[in-house]
Amino acid sequence: MNFIAKLHAAWTSSNSLLCVGLDPDPARLPARVRGTSQSIFEFNRAIIDATHDLVCAYKPQIAYFASQSAEDQLLKSIDYLRTQYPHIPIILDSKRGDIGSTAEQYAVEAFTRYGADAVTVNPYMGSDSITPFTSHRDKGVVILCRTSNVGAKDFQDLQIDGQPLYVHVAHKVATEWNAHGNCMLVVGATWPEQMRQIRAVVGDMPFLVPGIGAQGGDVKAMVTAGKTTDGTGLIVNSSRAVLYASNGDDFAQAARRVAQAARDEINLYR
Amino acid sequence: MNFIAKLHAAWTSSNSLLCVGLDPDPARLPARVRGTSQSIFEFNRAIIDATHDLVCAYKPQIAYFASQSAEDQLLKSIDYLRTQYPHIPIILDSKRGDIGSTAEQYAVEAFTRYGADAVTVNPYMGSDSITPFTSHRDKGVVILCRTSNVGAKDFQDLQIDGQPLYVHVAHKVATEWNAHGNCMLVVGATWPEQMRQIRAVVGDMPFLVPGIGAQGGDVKAMVTAGKTTDGTGLIVNSSRAVLYASNGDDFAQAARRVAQAARDEINLYR
Repeated sequence: MNFIAKLHAAWTSSNSLLCVGLDPDPARLPARVRGTSQSIFEFNRAIIDATHDLVCAYKPQIAYFASQSAEDQLLKSIDYLRTQYPHIPIILDSKRGDIGSTAEQYAVEAFTRYGADAVTVNPYMGSDSITPFTSHRDKGVVILCRTSNVGAKDFQDLQIDGQPLYVHVAHKVATEWNAHGNCMLVVGATWPEQMRQIRAVVGDMPFLVPGIGAQGGDVKAMVTAGKTTDGTGLIVNSSRAVLYASNGDDFAQAARRVAQAARDEINLYR
Repeated sequence: MNFIAKLHAAWTSSNSLLCVGLDPDPARLPARVRGTSQSIFEFNRAIIDATHDLVCAYKPQIAYFASQSAEDQLLKSIDYLRTQYPHIPIILDSKRGDIGSTAEQYAVEAFTRYGADAVTVNPYMGSDSITPFTSHRDKGVVILCRTSNVGAKDFQDLQIDGQPLYVHVAHKVATEWNAHGNCMLVVGATWPEQMRQIRAVVGDMPFLVPGIGAQGGDVKAMVTAGKTTDGTGLIVNSSRAVLYASNGDDFAQAARRVAQAARDEINLYR
């Protein structure tokens, strides 16, 4: 099954647009899982087991594994997901971007080494930095468009022929890079007006939406601006608010409560 | 010693602006080093030993290690460089870019885990994606500006208030991000006119220049356009043309010949 079909099936079966981001910050792991050589994996497994029926996707953030020399635990976490919950799409958040020959190596990293269903990429270097990912027709490719952070405005909002750069990116993706129908866009929850504008450019293309929870995005405004006519179209990510809902022994149950509340709040406005 | 001082010392002691990129493609490794569990490291060590007196820097490309689950051999290659040739700056080419909390993890990856002297980063996400790197005042941060690939034109050349996006990036780096004097720019060898324009914006800021060798950039036009008044200012990278000069048992000697010719050709126009 290709990524977009898997995503649609997961939206339906979970009745959820929520994605949980796996950002295992060693400084914030609860005491119960600390101190073992596999603490990152143990933490991820507990979070996954506690939230699997509430999500349409998981998004491991590779930086948190790379900083800890824990590629093995990233692989183990993804293998656990693929074995236990094979219907849930896995988006590797790595925001790679390089010349074609190097991008091919990054595609091997994401799709062969880790077996992710989709990967995030950066558009700054243009078409030949994207093709090595999109040519994997069964995989999803999530291109940064309008990101959720404060610095996003520095370049993404610059006006070119009366439209901001992020609209030019959205237009390029919709009209050129999406030839195999496997592209998506990162559009931050913190900018509902921009999300509405991008939705108008790209039709039903799914958005990966960071920025609720710790980053403070308004759920109602975001869902209303970004949903498609069938009430989907959004992969709404929450990482820290779910993962670190409690640092006590109840961290997994607390994560479940926050995830359930986020799912339900999103569903109010679909 | 901070990165820029180390770079200036290396430019002087090697009488070279050449940087050798360590892109160990498993499909192209010579038979002599294939088939062992440390073949990537063995290849890198042979290349380094054969070229160390001809270069001002080495630039390992992390994608080639990540695709092969060979982070250990990247670390071993960097450790070898730091031990044997501690005066040569090491630029980790990873082109990272993410929100601040994640960028901090990537800074740990580059500077703590691998002990690189400098790292390449992507500007698309703006200021808060860059600060976690530049705040390491003794380290170098190389920001993508005008890249060497064909797709670079897709967004980098878009005109904003009469100037292309890459000039806006250069201006932002020079006037804001370079507060600690540790920024550099990626400017492709394939675009000498653009390089001249960027040089005019950023003064003596060093450029990391990909695109000679396999990518076909014109050395004379590039050096003339990009050098600073003291005949430095450029870290001219060659990867594949050096690494794969021969796939026989003489690969290291062949790499040396190509590196020497590249250094000498560059020096003709300084």
